[in-house]
Amino acid sequence: MKEIIVQKFGGTSVGDIDKIKNVARRIVDTKNKGYDVIVTVSAMGKTTDVLVEKAFEISQNPSSREMDMLLATGEQVSIALLAMAIQSLGHPVISLTGAQCGIKTDSSHKKARINNIDTKRLQKELGDGKIVIVAGFQGINENQDITTLGRGGSDTTAVAIAAAIGAAKCEIYTDVDGVYTADPRKVKEASLMKRISYDEMLELANLGAGVLHPRSVELARKFNVPLVVRSSFNDNEGTEIVNIDQIEKVVVRGISLDDDIAKVSVLGVPDRPGIAFKLFSILSMNNINVDMIIQNVNRESINDISFTVKKDDLADFLKISDMLLESIGAEKITYDDSVAKLSIVGTGIAGNTEVTSKFFETLYELGVNIQMISTSSIKISCIIDREGAEKGMDKLHEKFQLN
Amino acid sequence: MKEIIVQKFGGTSVGDIDKIKNVARRIVDTKNKGYDVIVTVSAMGKTTDVLVEKAFEISQNPSSREMDMLLATGEQVSIALLAMAIQSLGHPVISLTGAQCGIKTDSSHKKARINNIDTKRLQKELGDGKIVIVAGFQGINENQDITTLGRGGSDTTAVAIAAAIGAAKCEIYTDVDGVYTADPRKVKEASLMKRISYDEMLELANLGAGVLHPRSVELARKFNVPLVVRSSFNDNEGTEIVNIDQIEKVVVRGISLDDDIAKVSVLGVPDRPGIAFKLFSILSMNNINVDMIIQNVNRESINDISFTVKKDDLADFLKISDMLLESIGAEKITYDDSVAKLSIVGTGIAGNTEVTSKFFETLYELGVNIQMISTSSIKISCIIDREGAEKGMDKLHEKFQLN
Repeated sequence: MKEIIVQKFGGTSVGDIDKIKNVARRIVDTKNKGYDVIVTVSAMGKTTDVLVEKAFEISQNPSSREMDMLLATGEQVSIALLAMAIQSLGHPVISLTGAQCGIKTDSSHKKARINNIDTKRLQKELGDGKIVIVAGFQGINENQDITTLGRGGSDTTAVAIAAAIGAAKCEIYTDVDGVYTADPRKVKEASLMKRISYDEMLELANLGAGVLHPRSVELARKFNVPLVVRSSFNDNEGTEIVNIDQIEKVVVRGISLDDDIAKVSVLGVPDRPGIAFKLFSILSMNNINVDMIIQNVNRESINDISFTVKKDDLADFLKISDMLLESIGAEKITYDDSVAKLSIVGTGIAGNTEVTSKFFETLYELGVNIQMISTSSIKISCIIDREGAEKGMDKLHEKFQLN
Repeated sequence: MKEIIVQKFGGTSVGDIDKIKNVARRIVDTKNKGYDVIVTVSAMGKTTDVLVEKAFEISQNPSSREMDMLLATGEQVSIALLAMAIQSLGHPVISLTGAQCGIKTDSSHKKARINNIDTKRLQKELGDGKIVIVAGFQGINENQDITTLGRGGSDTTAVAIAAAIGAAKCEIYTDVDGVYTADPRKVKEASLMKRISYDEMLELANLGAGVLHPRSVELARKFNVPLVVRSSFNDNEGTEIVNIDQIEKVVVRGISLDDDIAKVSVLGVPDRPGIAFKLFSILSMNNINVDMIIQNVNRESINDISFTVKKDDLADFLKISDMLLESIGAEKITYDDSVAKLSIVGTGIAGNTEVTSKFFETLYELGVNIQMISTSSIKISCIIDREGAEKGMDKLHEKFQLN
């Protein structure tokens, strides 16, 4: 049995015909090095956006099932064209939709979770010596309806396949060289990391570093799939994401800024057991993902609960906010979409008071007002206004000597 | 049980967002009249052409399987958008790909034949009160690979579904008002027919009238599915296509001209049993469809065989022509793609020498040279140069008083 490599190419990597040909060459190169190769691929460039626009020209509230039917075509076009490009290089290849690849999901359209992957067809095609191209981002539910996996879906497809088939590694090709100590578009001095642990990457992904979706990193950690993030436009080695015990401890590893969030506060929540459960289960039923949660007790028997949501989910949240207020008997809901989350991440942060105080000192010196704080063993995050967050990122990068 | 109507909308009927909304209204109107409605739909406007172009930018010889994977996305986009448009009119609806609709085909990619339709899902969705939108032109083979049905595929899907589910009728919506006595773009005096028999329509379809593909008419005749051809842009009643015994006999019903053909001659074919079989089975294996076949004996033991092929198939034919010559031991192959087929069709033609002589007399008066002649009980066709064919069509329309 040959070792299997799973490669994932994002939308910018297959943005036009020349890029598709370029990707085809990379894939054949890997195959020629003696590996079995499975590739997952996203829709070309802005295809998905164009399809979404068409849907909204037709209906203000298109059903999720039909939206998935529509969006799944984007990846299907990519796999067919990429397979043709590989064929024209003279290599046996076959493209598979999510359904054909046996990617079975639950039925939450637009945000489906993979239940399992039936690898029979994958194994047959690899056994026949073929490169296999799989449509990312999609699967099929038990009614044979097409589902899509939502944000970061193609990364998740790649890692899930790598886990299911026992691949030696999963390479995520993107338009940047790997994982940086901070967003290189925003911090000039940002430097590339050679290795990082799943946990650190997870914090960075969750914190908006944007290179990898947290779902895919979680899945890779769970099944111990070695991940590599690298550029599809050059041969640089990129960043390896591995188990924490393979990593030398570094106090602060990276800084991230997420400005795709809004802060929501539910004020005057009765202080009774089960209220928070009720609040967050209503949000979950409405498919609104909540991040950073803070609860302050400010008056007796009355709490304020604040949390952040993705900016995209804010409109959905506001639609149900009246119902929510009534269900839990709270007084008022406020929101602010001009905030950002600024975070530092590193395995050495836990219990290191020097790091903590340097972090807050830096923000104090910049005159930045902190609205929410949240910490874990490997990160400190705070919600501040967007401008302050940008200034803070530069300054923290310098203070922690990450360049 | 409600009566079921199957409606088919072609690419021009769903060419843009407004047209899709218009089609959605028609469908809901039909549903509101008390029918169960199944709709098949083609890819929007020029979508298929754009996809084919992309494929050829990548590969000069893309595999048929991957081509089908690519092209099937066109109809998938249409069904999702049309379903959304119907939803926004407040009607329950569901879209189904060929695979989901249970359209099982053989494995000849790009030209697949429907083997059977498993109507379980269709029946369930109709039972739930939903309008069902099915992707035309596509199916799935026994390996779960996507196939496409080739020319006229969406018409064929509609008729096949109507036959499988026992629909009361199958309406083919198009950009013309119905079936005319001649192509109205070419003959000003052409008039619309209210009724025509399957057999006459079959001859007209085969002869290039272009409104309906012969495969769909054959299928409708075989399963006795009443067909209606009408415009998606107005409420005119269109043309009904029914059994011959429901039709009053008309001597000459219509005239058609097909200029999408090329004439091929295989010269110096040995006059031995089995040679014609060998010739045409090689063509069939190479998926080259042959129409009008003429064999002339001009020398002892040596024959010339001429036939017509679709212009699209000519390139494929020329690729195998050397192999063909060698296999059957013929001398030479010639071809001419500047010809056209001109035909008159009508149930009263059989044995009516007046019609036959008027036909040839008209062409003689125009000075048109006839290269091949073929007749059946309800038609006379001949192959002539394209210019002569156009003049002939006008003149014959006038002589047979079809306006």
